[in-house]
Amino acid sequence: MVATPGGFPTVGMVGGGQLARMTAPAAVALGVRLAVLAEAADDSAALVVPATSIGSHLDDAAVRAFAATVDVLTFDHEHVPTDLLHELQEAGHAVRPGPQALVHAQDKAVMRTRLGALGVPMPRWALVSTPHELSDFADGVGWPVVLKTTRGGYDGKGVARIATTADAVGWLSRAAASGVPLLVEEAVDFRRELAAVVARSPSGQAAAWPVVTTTQVDGICREVIAPAPDLDGELAAEATRIALQLAGDLDVVGVLAVEMFEATDAAGRPRVLVNELAMRPHNSGHWSIDGAVTSQFEQHLRAVLDLPLGDPRARCAWTVMVNVLGGDHPELYRSYLHVMARDPGVKVHLYGKGVRPGRKIGHVTVCTDDPLGLDDALARARHAADFIAGVIDE
Amino acid sequence: MVATPGGFPTVGMVGGGQLARMTAPAAVALGVRLAVLAEAADDSAALVVPATSIGSHLDDAAVRAFAATVDVLTFDHEHVPTDLLHELQEAGHAVRPGPQALVHAQDKAVMRTRLGALGVPMPRWALVSTPHELSDFADGVGWPVVLKTTRGGYDGKGVARIATTADAVGWLSRAAASGVPLLVEEAVDFRRELAAVVARSPSGQAAAWPVVTTTQVDGICREVIAPAPDLDGELAAEATRIALQLAGDLDVVGVLAVEMFEATDAAGRPRVLVNELAMRPHNSGHWSIDGAVTSQFEQHLRAVLDLPLGDPRARCAWTVMVNVLGGDHPELYRSYLHVMARDPGVKVHLYGKGVRPGRKIGHVTVCTDDPLGLDDALARARHAADFIAGVIDE
Repeated sequence: MVATPGGFPTVGMVGGGQLARMTAPAAVALGVRLAVLAEAADDSAALVVPATSIGSHLDDAAVRAFAATVDVLTFDHEHVPTDLLHELQEAGHAVRPGPQALVHAQDKAVMRTRLGALGVPMPRWALVSTPHELSDFADGVGWPVVLKTTRGGYDGKGVARIATTADAVGWLSRAAASGVPLLVEEAVDFRRELAAVVARSPSGQAAAWPVVTTTQVDGICREVIAPAPDLDGELAAEATRIALQLAGDLDVVGVLAVEMFEATDAAGRPRVLVNELAMRPHNSGHWSIDGAVTSQFEQHLRAVLDLPLGDPRARCAWTVMVNVLGGDHPELYRSYLHVMARDPGVKVHLYGKGVRPGRKIGHVTVCTDDPLGLDDALARARHAADFIAGVIDE
Repeated sequence: MVATPGGFPTVGMVGGGQLARMTAPAAVALGVRLAVLAEAADDSAALVVPATSIGSHLDDAAVRAFAATVDVLTFDHEHVPTDLLHELQEAGHAVRPGPQALVHAQDKAVMRTRLGALGVPMPRWALVSTPHELSDFADGVGWPVVLKTTRGGYDGKGVARIATTADAVGWLSRAAASGVPLLVEEAVDFRRELAAVVARSPSGQAAAWPVVTTTQVDGICREVIAPAPDLDGELAAEATRIALQLAGDLDVVGVLAVEMFEATDAAGRPRVLVNELAMRPHNSGHWSIDGAVTSQFEQHLRAVLDLPLGDPRARCAWTVMVNVLGGDHPELYRSYLHVMARDPGVKVHLYGKGVRPGRKIGHVTVCTDDPLGLDDALARARHAADFIAGVIDE
C-alpha cells in the first residue's frame, strides 16, 4: 500500500476503459489516489492515470497483485470472474461492489431469477437450450423475441432480436458449446427506454439522480436526456424506487444503473420494466459530469470509500449527452476548430481511443437553463458529436 | 514528439504545482495530452499526470529537453528565466505566453513601466535603491508604503507594508546584494480587491469571466466571490476592458489574471487600480471549475492551442471559493466524513500536497442559484474549508 500525504486512500479500478478514465478527474479533485489495472498501456485510462498496472482482468495473479496495492477494489466493467472476486473478498480485500452483488450484473440469468424473487417488474423470460424450448416460450409471449447470452455481452453484443427458431440455431449451438446459458425474453413494446441511476455506500446511504431517457441504436447508447422529458411523476418515482430497492436488496456498493423500458400494462397504465443492470458508472450517467452537482464518477468514488454521498441533483433544466461514435475519420482533433467556434458552450469529452467505426470514442454534453430549450440543446449536441465523428462536415 | 491517436497535441506545462494539477482534468476531457515538468515526483501535478518529467525550471538543459517533447510550452508559474524562454522561442518552440508577454508577470518594474505607457490606472510607484529615494517617494504619497521585490514574489512573499525608512533597511540591502531592484508603491486606500480574469488566443480571440472579488489575508488569497457582489456595472465593464486591453497590448496567450483595487478617485467616484498580473490560471479563477461553463484550466488549454475559446459565463447566481490552508493537522482525509455528510453540495478540491501551516493545500467551492443565497454559500464554504484544515472541529 503506497502512503499518500494527508491519509488519502487508493482506489483500484479493474479495467482501463473510458469509465476509469473519467473517474480520474474526480479522484484528482478529491485528492484520492486512483490506480488502474489496464490491459494495455494505451488503454483510455492508462493514458491519464500514473498508477496504472498492465494486466488482464482474467489473469488471477495480475488481479491479486493489483488488489494488494490498493485500499478498495472496484471496476470499470463486469468481466472479472466471480470466483476470483469471492477469493479476494475472503482474503480480506474490500471488493466494491462485492461479488454477491456484482454477479447480478455479470449473469443475466442470476439477475432475472433474483428480480423475480424480489417482485420487480421485468419482461417475461426463460432460459432455453433447445429450439423446442425457444419456440414454446416465443409462441406464448409472441414473436419476435430477444435472445441474450447470460454472460459477457455489452453495447449490443450478445443480444439479438429473432423472428423464427431458425434464426436461433447458431446461438443455441454456441451456448451449448460454451456452457454459457441462453436467455430469451419477450420483445417489449416500449414507448422509450429510461435509466434510473443511483449510488449506494456500504453504510447503506443511497442517492438517486433524476431518471433519464436513453436512445439506443443497434444496441449502442446514442443519446441521453436528463431528466426524461414528460415523464409521469409517479412513474419517475417508481423507477427511482425500484433502483433504490435493488441497490439495497442486492447490497450494491457504488453506482448502479438500472435500464428500463417505459411501457404500458394491459389496462394502458404506464409502467416500467427492468431491462439491464450495471454496477459501475454507466453511459446513462455521463451527463452528470457537466449536468449534476455530483457526477457519477465522484459519487462512485465516494460510495466505494464509504464517504457520505454528494448531491445528485441536476444543475440545469436540461442536460443532453450525445455519444461520439467512431466513423471513417481517424483525425479527431481538427474538428475542434469548427465545433468550438460554432458553439462555445458545448462540453467535449474524448477518450483517447483509436477510431473504429461504431466504437464509443467520446461524448458531448450541452446544458441549458431554459425550460423550453431542450430541442435546441439536442440539436447542438448532435451537431457537435456528428461533426467530431466526421458524419457531417459543416 | 509522442504521437497520440486522433491527432491530438501535447501541451507541456513547466511547473508541477496545483495549477498544473487542475489542468489535468481539463486535458483528460479534451483528449489533449498534458506533460508536466515538475521538480519532484511527489509534486501536486506529478501525482496525477503520467507524462511527468522531473527537472528544475531553472535548469536550462531540463527545460530544453522538456520543450522538445511537447507541441506547446506553457507555465504553472512565472519563474522560468526570461532569457531561456527567448532562446526556446527563437529555436522554434511555441512558448505561450511568449517571453515578451510573460516578462510583465515576472518583473514588476517592467510591468509598472508598461502599464504607465499604456495609460492603465495603477498605484503611484517608483524604483528605489536608497533610504533617501524611499523617503522622498513616501513623503510625497504618504506613509505607509508598500515595498515589493520586482522578481520572485508570490503569495505575500516579497511584499511588505512599511511605516518608516528604518523598516526598509534590510530590504534595501538585500536588493543591493541580489541585484533585484526594489519597487515602492503607495498603499492604496481600497474598498476591496477585484480580479478580472480573461483568456486570449494567438489568433486574438479573447473571453472574460465575470469580475470577482478576492479577499487576501497576510497576502494569501482566502476567498473569492463570483461575481463581485454589488459591483457597479460601469466599474465592472472598466475592469474587464482593462484586462482585455492588457491581454491584447501585451500579446498575452492563455489566461491573464489582473488583480485590482477597487478605490475612489479624488472626487469620490469609484475606480480600479491595477495591482498585479498573472499569466496563467490563477487562484482568483478556481471558482470557474464548478461555477463557469468553461473553467480557466480548460480555457488556458484552448488558448495556448489556439482553439476557439469556451463560454466563460457563470453557471449560477453566486459561486464562492474558499482556499484550504494547511494547519496543524496533517491528516486531511478523515475530515471528509463530516464535511460531506454536513453538506452534500460542497465541492472539494485538494492538491495532494503535504500540510504546512499557511500553505495552499486545496479549495472548496459552493454554487448557488439563489440570488439571495450568497451569505449562506459563504458560510458553507468557509465551514468546509476550516473543517478540512482542522481550524474548527464541529
